[in-house]
Amino acid sequence: MTSLVGYARRCASQFASVSEKAKYVPRRSLLYVPASSEKMLNKVPLMKSDCVVLELEDGVALTSKAVARSNAVKTLNQLQGSMLSCFELGLRVNSFASGLLEDDLKELSKAEVLPAAFMIPKVDTPEDVATIYDLFRTTFGANRITDSPTRLVIWIESARALLDMPRIVSSVINLHRNSGFFKLDAVVFGSDDFCADIGAIRTAEGLENIYARQRFVTVCKAFQLQAIDSVYIDLKDEEGLRESCLQGHSWGFTGKQAIHPSQVPIIQDSYKPSAERVEWAKSLADAFSMHQQGGTGAFSFRGQMIDRPLLLQAMNVLQMQERIMGGGL
Amino acid sequence: MTSLVGYARRCASQFASVSEKAKYVPRRSLLYVPASSEKMLNKVPLMKSDCVVLELEDGVALTSKAVARSNAVKTLNQLQGSMLSCFELGLRVNSFASGLLEDDLKELSKAEVLPAAFMIPKVDTPEDVATIYDLFRTTFGANRITDSPTRLVIWIESARALLDMPRIVSSVINLHRNSGFFKLDAVVFGSDDFCADIGAIRTAEGLENIYARQRFVTVCKAFQLQAIDSVYIDLKDEEGLRESCLQGHSWGFTGKQAIHPSQVPIIQDSYKPSAERVEWAKSLADAFSMHQQGGTGAFSFRGQMIDRPLLLQAMNVLQMQERIMGGGL
Amino acid sequence: MTSLVGYARRCASQFASVSEKAKYVPRRSLLYVPASSEKMLNKVPLMKSDCVVLELEDGVALTSKAVARSNAVKTLNQLQGSMLSCFELGLRVNSFASGLLEDDLKELSKAEVLPAAFMIPKVDTPEDVATIYDLFRTTFGANRITDSPTRLVIWIESARALLDMPRIVSSVINLHRNSGFFKLDAVVFGSDDFCADIGAIRTAEGLENIYARQRFVTVCKAFQLQAIDSVYIDLKDEEGLRESCLQGHSWGFTGKQAIHPSQVPIIQDSYKPSAERVEWAKSLADAFSMHQQGGTGAFSFRGQMIDRPLLLQAMNVLQMQERIMGGGL
Repeated sequence: MTSLVGYARRCASQFASVSEKAKYVPRRSLLYVPASSEKMLNKVPLMKSDCVVLELEDGVALTSKAVARSNAVKTLNQLQGSMLSCFELGLRVNSFASGLLEDDLKELSKAEVLPAAFMIPKVDTPEDVATIYDLFRTTFGANRITDSPTRLVIWIESARALLDMPRIVSSVINLHRNSGFFKLDAVVFGSDDFCADIGAIRTAEGLENIYARQRFVTVCKAFQLQAIDSVYIDLKDEEGLRESCLQGHSWGFTGKQAIHPSQVPIIQDSYKPSAERVEWAKSLADAFSMHQQGGTGAFSFRGQMIDRPLLLQAMNVLQMQERIMGGGL
Repeated sequence: MTSLVGYARRCASQFASVSEKAKYVPRRSLLYVPASSEKMLNKVPLMKSDCVVLELEDGVALTSKAVARSNAVKTLNQLQGSMLSCFELGLRVNSFASGLLEDDLKELSKAEVLPAAFMIPKVDTPEDVATIYDLFRTTFGANRITDSPTRLVIWIESARALLDMPRIVSSVINLHRNSGFFKLDAVVFGSDDFCADIGAIRTAEGLENIYARQRFVTVCKAFQLQAIDSVYIDLKDEEGLRESCLQGHSWGFTGKQAIHPSQVPIIQDSYKPSAERVEWAKSLADAFSMHQQGGTGAFSFRGQMIDRPLLLQAMNVLQMQERIMGGGL
Repeated sequence: MTSLVGYARRCASQFASVSEKAKYVPRRSLLYVPASSEKMLNKVPLMKSDCVVLELEDGVALTSKAVARSNAVKTLNQLQGSMLSCFELGLRVNSFASGLLEDDLKELSKAEVLPAAFMIPKVDTPEDVATIYDLFRTTFGANRITDSPTRLVIWIESARALLDMPRIVSSVINLHRNSGFFKLDAVVFGSDDFCADIGAIRTAEGLENIYARQRFVTVCKAFQLQAIDSVYIDLKDEEGLRESCLQGHSWGFTGKQAIHPSQVPIIQDSYKPSAERVEWAKSLADAFSMHQQGGTGAFSFRGQMIDRPLLLQAMNVLQMQERIMGGGL
């Protein structure tokens, strides 16, 4: 499999060097760990979800926010440099609207390292984005932010946010390009809050959500971002979870939230690139490599003109496959 | 049940006093009464639809518009101060594009009272909104509009209007805030005209409409407005009507248009808040009330951070339940 | 049937004369003919698809682009003034992003006549539109463009393009109005490239595409454009093709792409206006004609106020029916 790295690197180097800041981070599953629970925190190093999320928001009662914050700082300091089973240790803060975000950030600024990803729920308007960045800059200082390879993951959870999603997302991307804010990597669809906001009742088939979920994916992909699907609530229904994953995958989602470690293997297996997909990506990278040596402009592969988004998809598949093989996940 | 009013009032008073201008008006069903038919008009006082609509538009032939207008004025004058079985007596004028609206308003300005809701079909662009407001202001005078508790209900019935719906709706809301125009309460999806506009053929399953109806609900809810669903055409198919109501309700619609009084009981029953929903709203209002006494900022209820839209939903449920119980509907 | 022409003409003359530049061109099926294949090109005069597309893009290998261009020029010159079985002989160039468009246009400018329709794939942004127009103007000269009855057909094939589609389409329409660029008649949904762009996997039911296809139709119809549906890939599955056509037709699409001549009869039969639809259009035109003689303003037909889009639809049905009957297609 080592040749895959080569392909991905060579391929990627056409556009950007695969530095820490550019590498693809798979997030097939996002597993929440309430930072108020020391018992759960102790298990983090062994958790095999692509992305483990230290949770300060919905999973933590109001009375436990302070404890959760200081636990999170301790965990970040302890696990720095450790071998983790996950690819990414993220941290979800409270929303700006909750009034708790400022205290979250003040406490977190005491950690020696920043989390690999900051995760921000309930981003509702482009104006929210500017205010959130101001809070980060004031608390951490512009340099600490710019120098960090930390990624950003945001949640879309309301009707207003879904309608304004292109402007919200491009605001975050512009703050990265122009002011050095963290790089936006993924957006998560918070379907429970969304359904509560529009007054919809969730059903097993999920027909009530089809517009929201497909618009969500379309906006994510228009900006070349990962699209993370809703939680599957029924913990005992493995078959339903698998079906939900396969539907999400076939609609263009790249991963799914997990509310229990038992959901992770099914989710990650469902969102693994198929053998055909890996073969396609490898051959495309191959063709691209040969084509670059020829020095010509346009580039066709299996009857399709290859553009930048498709090449990027192929690179992501190869990097994901490489990491999955290497990490044994 | 009297305690519910207390909850709703106390709850609402945090944001605005529940004056005539702020109270929630349930519109589970909108029942059209052609104002050209004196026979139908005589039955209005006993009609039990949440909202009864004196109709000047599609339900009235061109040759009967003049009669319908003067009947509407008479009905408004006669029924003022009467006991009505409905919660609201609205009046639907002709669209701006028809060229008939100016004559409608001139005649209606002779009524001693304005209808409880003005209902305006086929609002197609934000520019329409400004022109319509100008017609109202010129005919009624700015003061008579500003002083009235009259609400506004508009119809979205074309592809263009659906695409531009956020700008249309925010134009109306801004005219209320900045110029004292009537308060926009609800938007109605005119699916027959919409389907004719895009050339779609309506089927029983309604899959051809899923994007339009779900986008419609999302925009309504982003602006905290009621979302009123399509007409169900087959008068004899009660089972189909009930299924259509339940689907609409589960998608976030708050009510449905009725083309015959026989449809009203099924519609209103389907859109009644469930016992669980009322219990949720009551408990949330309770928790909010206790929380306010404690004086703290953020507020969590059953594992969810409570924001303004959710609190508003709870208040609306309580006010609706109160009126339904009080009105025997 | 001759009376239908009369109706359509009389009807249309209220708004615009039915000159070559205004007439409705049915495009129930779009059949691709790779311009690299002389064998296929020889069959063009007998092809019965409403619209036959000389193809320079995806259907032509990179190494054959030059041959395809000069074949296309020869075909345009030879077939000028010939009796063709199709209503329109279009020509699809390469996308702007491919870097091949400039060479396409340079070669095509040598043809004595322009194609009846220029077809442009992968229009991704409103900025693309301006650049494409500049290329046309520079190559052909503004006058040759303005003087030609050539129509424009564009492809929407990415997440970004779908989100920005209203601005893309109105850019093209404005270039026609303000600068005399070709008149935009139709937009085609390129579902394979779209699915590749969002990472979706196409299924037989096509649920993964419902948001994209229905938004696509809504935007087309908001601008009164034809909406051309996806390719049906399985050449042997006639029943599946017919179902796909009927679904598209009932959703508001006006035609469908064909990748093989064998698909054309099924597609064209499915997209033919029904007898009821023709009767509706004829009666509406009749009523409109009588109404115009009466000289009054508003106009009602079978209980519905008739506005410009509906009248236009009726005219299009009549023109299409006339051409289908006349052309024996």
